[in-house]
Amino acid sequence: MSKIQVGIVGYGNLGRGVETALMSAPDMTLSAIFTRRDPASIHPLSSAVSVRPLAEVETMKGCIDVLIICAGSATDLPEMTPALARSFNVVDSYDHHALIQDHYAKVDAVARENQTLAIISAGWDPGLFSINRVSADAVFPNGVSTTFWGKGVSQGHSDALRRVSGVLDARQYTIPIEDALRRVRSGDRTKLTTREKHVRECFVVAEKDADLNRIEAEIKAMPGYFADYDTTVHFITQAELDRDHRALPHGGSVIHAGTTGAAREHHCLVEFHVEMDSNPEFTGAILVAYARAVVRMHQRGMVGCRTVLDVAPSDLSPLSGEELRRKYL
Amino acid sequence: MSKIQVGIVGYGNLGRGVETALMSAPDMTLSAIFTRRDPASIHPLSSAVSVRPLAEVETMKGCIDVLIICAGSATDLPEMTPALARSFNVVDSYDHHALIQDHYAKVDAVARENQTLAIISAGWDPGLFSINRVSADAVFPNGVSTTFWGKGVSQGHSDALRRVSGVLDARQYTIPIEDALRRVRSGDRTKLTTREKHVRECFVVAEKDADLNRIEAEIKAMPGYFADYDTTVHFITQAELDRDHRALPHGGSVIHAGTTGAAREHHCLVEFHVEMDSNPEFTGAILVAYARAVVRMHQRGMVGCRTVLDVAPSDLSPLSGEELRRKYL
Repeated sequence: MSKIQVGIVGYGNLGRGVETALMSAPDMTLSAIFTRRDPASIHPLSSAVSVRPLAEVETMKGCIDVLIICAGSATDLPEMTPALARSFNVVDSYDHHALIQDHYAKVDAVARENQTLAIISAGWDPGLFSINRVSADAVFPNGVSTTFWGKGVSQGHSDALRRVSGVLDARQYTIPIEDALRRVRSGDRTKLTTREKHVRECFVVAEKDADLNRIEAEIKAMPGYFADYDTTVHFITQAELDRDHRALPHGGSVIHAGTTGAAREHHCLVEFHVEMDSNPEFTGAILVAYARAVVRMHQRGMVGCRTVLDVAPSDLSPLSGEELRRKYL
Repeated sequence: MSKIQVGIVGYGNLGRGVETALMSAPDMTLSAIFTRRDPASIHPLSSAVSVRPLAEVETMKGCIDVLIICAGSATDLPEMTPALARSFNVVDSYDHHALIQDHYAKVDAVARENQTLAIISAGWDPGLFSINRVSADAVFPNGVSTTFWGKGVSQGHSDALRRVSGVLDARQYTIPIEDALRRVRSGDRTKLTTREKHVRECFVVAEKDADLNRIEAEIKAMPGYFADYDTTVHFITQAELDRDHRALPHGGSVIHAGTTGAAREHHCLVEFHVEMDSNPEFTGAILVAYARAVVRMHQRGMVGCRTVLDVAPSDLSPLSGEELRRKYL
């Protein structure tokens, strides 16, 4: 069997996470990294890997089985995924929940027209968490699913902090409230408010002579990001931030409290829980498994856009159906 | 959309669990229950449901979209699933791990020949646990998966107790050892022995004047069932057993401790955990969701035998792809 030829588009934290995950995939090879930056400025972990300008990606059509697009959901993926799906099978981790429908429709149209296959929104949320919500709700339709995130760094909230005037750098941790976790795990199905589920803890490096009270007040009042939460703000030095807050850990749980029985008299609980030292490496590993699935499903004649919800577990694994049944059932 | 017409084969604890789960499935109807007992002795929860002799099941060919076979793995399913797959799409919960390959091959041959679709070994283990083992291992191939069962009633071990001479009735609880759970959840990847993971607690009703020491010694020495575990035996009365040990709770966890990063320097953990008051109702709900998937996959032209590993999450749900993306991604 020839190995699956993979291209990485974008070489930030996530691109590097995909690169390291590919090292552990026995059936896949990293063919090339594509970048919008100067290729000479990119130093892959393996010096054997070719780094090319993204503008030249079309020249690799036919040599690459799947592209893993490691770019941001705000402005890059809405353009890049449909554009690249014209010539390649693609996987992305688009995570702007409210706009997934639009992204799906655009990618689906291009992929169908060009007979390629795309999987969008592969990661852990959206991604593995979505799968668990769908399965739990399908099997136990009288239940309630609750998602907790953290403890971990939210890049979106860290970015929001850095947009506050007078802030030089910042890191934001999303922290689930232990008592809420305990209640949900015990089967309590009372609907929790946003404030009851998580707190937000901010580590902020401010400009010299900045008005710290004004910065703190502005952060705590920021709608959509902090206003609905109990938020703590710590002012620290850049040296402290660099020393103590450079890692990108994260985690979370999807907890489904359901019932069974004619009178719904019996309780049940299904929980899917993840913890990770490195969010981009964890997400990269998921993207690699879905890239394998894209290639297999495309080989079976599937084209258009799909999501993690449309992928069978067996397509994620390098093993054959018989090996899987023997080893895992 | 017409509803999916479902038949239940066998009306024990699991058959009743399937019946109650169907009450919460908006797109499915229970058409008939088939039994090897006298149909007049069966009293379904809904008196509107027809109960028929299993020998007459063929007369319903064409009226039933899928049969859910609720019978034992020891002797019934190896015969019934292939036989019924001649004329029907079928789902079973075959759980004899070592013999799944044989069962699969037999069912696959019959189903292909007759253009039907079967899903075998659907439940929680094998079943949802298998899915989580495959996915976690595919995404984090450098990790170690550990399964804990319980606290819950093992029917197989309870049956084994009842086969000991002098035992009238019995219940066996499988109990995970808290310290082992804690170690595995903390990322400790030391291989645990059988004895280090679970203890077994037995509640036994003995015959009057039976030699309790002999019974206890015989239980504790039983190979395959109790010899490899720290086992506790409590002798109680039938009244106590009936009062305190009639329920069938269970639970368990699949915990995958993995690594990410070029030097495998970052840890990650993925856990899938279930708890249930009623094992047969929980398993029944899973069988119903996979019965839905069988019908959908068969409508797309799929025939032969499959397992839970081959089913995409979207096929478990009554919702459309668009509804699923909108609600769960």
